[in-house]
Amino acid sequence: MRIGGRAWRALWERPGADGVEVIDQRQLPHRLTTVPLRTPAEVAAAIADMTVRGAPLIGAAAGYGVYLAARHAPDEHVENALAAAAELLAAARPTAVNLRWAVRSVLESAAAGRSPREKRERALEAARRIVADELERSRRIGEAGLQLIREAAARRGGGEVRVLTHCNAGWLACIDYGTATAPVYAAHDRGIPVHVWVSETRPRNQGAALTAFELGGHGVRHTVVADNACGHLMRRGQVDLVLVGADRVAANGDTANKVGTYLKALAAADTGVPFYVALPSSTIDWSLTDGDGIPIEERGGDEVRFVAGLGPGGPGRVLVVPEGSPAGNPAFDVTPARLVTAFVTEHGVVRPAELREKVGGR
Amino acid sequence: MRIGGRAWRALWERPGADGVEVIDQRQLPHRLTTVPLRTPAEVAAAIADMTVRGAPLIGAAAGYGVYLAARHAPDEHVENALAAAAELLAAARPTAVNLRWAVRSVLESAAAGRSPREKRERALEAARRIVADELERSRRIGEAGLQLIREAAARRGGGEVRVLTHCNAGWLACIDYGTATAPVYAAHDRGIPVHVWVSETRPRNQGAALTAFELGGHGVRHTVVADNACGHLMRRGQVDLVLVGADRVAANGDTANKVGTYLKALAAADTGVPFYVALPSSTIDWSLTDGDGIPIEERGGDEVRFVAGLGPGGPGRVLVVPEGSPAGNPAFDVTPARLVTAFVTEHGVVRPAELREKVGGR
Repeated sequence: MRIGGRAWRALWERPGADGVEVIDQRQLPHRLTTVPLRTPAEVAAAIADMTVRGAPLIGAAAGYGVYLAARHAPDEHVENALAAAAELLAAARPTAVNLRWAVRSVLESAAAGRSPREKRERALEAARRIVADELERSRRIGEAGLQLIREAAARRGGGEVRVLTHCNAGWLACIDYGTATAPVYAAHDRGIPVHVWVSETRPRNQGAALTAFELGGHGVRHTVVADNACGHLMRRGQVDLVLVGADRVAANGDTANKVGTYLKALAAADTGVPFYVALPSSTIDWSLTDGDGIPIEERGGDEVRFVAGLGPGGPGRVLVVPEGSPAGNPAFDVTPARLVTAFVTEHGVVRPAELREKVGGR
Repeated sequence: MRIGGRAWRALWERPGADGVEVIDQRQLPHRLTTVPLRTPAEVAAAIADMTVRGAPLIGAAAGYGVYLAARHAPDEHVENALAAAAELLAAARPTAVNLRWAVRSVLESAAAGRSPREKRERALEAARRIVADELERSRRIGEAGLQLIREAAARRGGGEVRVLTHCNAGWLACIDYGTATAPVYAAHDRGIPVHVWVSETRPRNQGAALTAFELGGHGVRHTVVADNACGHLMRRGQVDLVLVGADRVAANGDTANKVGTYLKALAAADTGVPFYVALPSSTIDWSLTDGDGIPIEERGGDEVRFVAGLGPGGPGRVLVVPEGSPAGNPAFDVTPARLVTAFVTEHGVVRPAELREKVGGR
């Protein structure tokens, strides 16, 4: 997608495949900078500190992380290095299922190589394939979701379609297009008027910082609101559909996504607004029958106690609680499948009850 | 209630009744300062810019505002000054019904005076009565709600009762005790162990800044969480009851309160957690059959675009959205009565369907 007229991606391979270059998402929206990731440890740290974030992007970065372990290891240590990197990377964020899926995928490809050199080649191929597949899946999610936006536009008699989204399931989270934003970009690029309500997404403000930055960069009309305002907007009939991403979905459709998603889903159900979860099928954890088994990452309380942004003297942060007050910080919540109207996947729009049949069988 | 061992109130009359002194709530939690309000214009400005906030406190300040108009006007202009001040004050915050109620109450008392001097005296008496009544109502709300906390403690077998609250319906909003916090203080002061989940309450962070400050000052255990986390806490069984305040309640029990209240109420209903609204009966607008008629104040977008707090160099604010992104800021939402378990009033605990019979008849 575009920033200031120029096409960007959230991750690309460095010349000579000596690593990847990524946008440092902690600096957005105030500074657009990139950082190189050249070792598994650098990739794991970038995932843990959220330099890279978003389930699909985390998967792509982690895939390269596994490859980089093989690249740097002496021939006799390639297998050990692959195993150690896989363990390190998988532990960087406990909730994201793409991460574990990508790590396993590259690991298995490398294992099929008969020599250290072939293991390295196969790992690189596998990491590249994750990126290519992710791009293709995002593009297809955009096409599937476009139909939902077209239908909403028809219901509105050609008026602006008002989408509400949470967190950032945009191209920054997915290399390009995005998941939740892919249908929005697809509609916008075809001339269908769209307006996006961007929920701030405390505590890390991925909506205010990243989704607003993306949409503004690409020229999509949007308005940032406090997370608290989303129920009010739906009750007052100002939202035509909700579109969010997911970090892990159980086989029954229970959806772990950025904390606060569950509250938006409740409001959508209460007000009759369709609630869609856009995701590549790699986000579905078929080993879980329901959402109760999804581990919820508890992050540090300082993400709540402080708010980062642009101060008069440059990037900085302010303390928003009294000095002595502790803070809790569950990073995700689980939205029960009964609140999800449908999933928007690379295989089309699928109701929760049809998930295993229409997506699991592929 | 106490701050650092010393008893405080949010508003008190200045010597000679030449105005009131109030805590500047915009400086909390990082600076505890007070400001004098000596004219109706100063009171109106303090209400509009949220130096004083919280429905009961706004009412008390506005009552003094009307009196101050009479105090300062020459004898021949007392009536005009009272009318002009009433209009100015009533317009300072559109959603708060206490404000209009308090203004009318002092105005009517003054009107009964037969001379300018008597009008002034009666206005002062009426303003003082609002404060005294507010204190008594808060105290009684605390006693009524204490029973609910005792019941929750019994259900937990004597373990800590876990209360979730939103915004600040504490003593800072009510001169003393508070509405939503009054039962918490009553329980704490009687040795019942209580822990309060404090939702941050973006965009102005009254939970993180004010409620956490109050609870910490009085020695009540608490944890600040992002508004987004409240649904997750309820789903995971970590909340025994929700206690919030209200800015205006319709005759059927539909409740306008700080934006985000509706989302917490939805989560409480979905997870079987009791959801209580604590309020003095003056917050009920009997002229409204339901919540659809409650005007929702739209405040400036900069409250969303910036977050205020304590920076390295002192109090300051940071921009959390891209330079060019607009923000929307509805300050309240309406929680339908069907989501309210009961109202905690100075007349006891009352279910929505009994509101008119048990409270309206008094």
